[in-house]
Amino acid sequence: MEPRKKIAIIVAGGSGTRMGSAVPKQFLELAGKPVLWHTVSAFAKAYADMQIVLVLPEAHFSYVEEWLGEFPGIMLIKGGETRFHSVKNGLDQVQEHSVVFVHDGVRPLVSVELIRSCYEAALESGSAIPAINMKDSIRELHEEGNRAVDRERFSIIQTPQTFLSELILPAFASPYDPLFTDEATVVERQGHIIRLVPGEEANIKITRPLDLIIASALLG
Amino acid sequence: MEPRKKIAIIVAGGSGTRMGSAVPKQFLELAGKPVLWHTVSAFAKAYADMQIVLVLPEAHFSYVEEWLGEFPGIMLIKGGETRFHSVKNGLDQVQEHSVVFVHDGVRPLVSVELIRSCYEAALESGSAIPAINMKDSIRELHEEGNRAVDRERFSIIQTPQTFLSELILPAFASPYDPLFTDEATVVERQGHIIRLVPGEEANIKITRPLDLIIASALLG
Repeated sequence: MEPRKKIAIIVAGGSGTRMGSAVPKQFLELAGKPVLWHTVSAFAKAYADMQIVLVLPEAHFSYVEEWLGEFPGIMLIKGGETRFHSVKNGLDQVQEHSVVFVHDGVRPLVSVELIRSCYEAALESGSAIPAINMKDSIRELHEEGNRAVDRERFSIIQTPQTFLSELILPAFASPYDPLFTDEATVVERQGHIIRLVPGEEANIKITRPLDLIIASALLG
Repeated sequence: MEPRKKIAIIVAGGSGTRMGSAVPKQFLELAGKPVLWHTVSAFAKAYADMQIVLVLPEAHFSYVEEWLGEFPGIMLIKGGETRFHSVKNGLDQVQEHSVVFVHDGVRPLVSVELIRSCYEAALESGSAIPAINMKDSIRELHEEGNRAVDRERFSIIQTPQTFLSELILPAFASPYDPLFTDEATVVERQGHIIRLVPGEEANIKITRPLDLIIASALLG
């Protein structure tokens, strides 16, 4: 049987992304390179035959032109109104018999090992979602107040959220629902039981200026 | 009516704390001072009449002797077998008509403002527990797999967990239960509805070497 194609949809903002005066987080510098460069680089390194699809607002295309040539074959796709629509735009590039990775552009520290373990697990189970243990105490809010819950019952979810094409393509053909907070939620809606795989503490999401400092420390 | 006494029980390890070759996190240096010094200092600054009770393993008493003199009236108490027992040892020092703060020794960035807002809220409601929003997607684990849950239903819990003495003292007179993961859980068991107050993103817990780097960045 022919081996599966591999395609990484790296999502770095939709059409509605605010363009303030500041450079968006995914283009800030981390160890001398833009955050998004590190993200793309990890996927390019994981498999020689990885097809990379970068989904970002058209207004941001100019940010990546400078270094795009380092990754031959990479595709640039316009983001949609929400995360769901951005991923859907990326999925238009997916061929049958693929493994599809959907990854946050602002998680530049994803390791080659994690990408490969997601691939292997998705081949086995149809899906592979990296998850780590919760380390904080949490409380559940309800109408009359709140109550302690056992944090061991919960996992924190990361990306790359990884799926066989025959699962993710039909799932994203269903109508948008605001309850779709990530790709796993969309695929789960079709009745598939999501497979969790061990994530990585260092696979952080860069959303605050402080996260860049943390990421530098983790790289150093 | 006489004003309430204020007492801060700062917990920095029990009797069972491992003594490896490395210096425990709470004694590592942060901006030129031990982590625990910063913690104690925040409580000393919050109220001039704050009584501070430091609960730590007897084997660690020598770590704090050098700077203890900076905080007149501070008490050193031996830790117990678990967090519950350590706090219970500290509670032996609490007098009637007090507001009791229980705080993690390894949360040195707690602000004076947060301590004061916990005090005010505890006066009103009996308890005050700082909580922040969850920013990660989470999944709930169950026997057959896992499912997406709405993270907005949950809050991440911090310290100081703050209580009127007439609530926390009887609660800690009940027998130990391994389900007691923090002080709020113990008090809640008595039927009290816990009051949450806005916590602080910077009020992080220092548990990994990386957290010290983050704390330095937050201080700087």
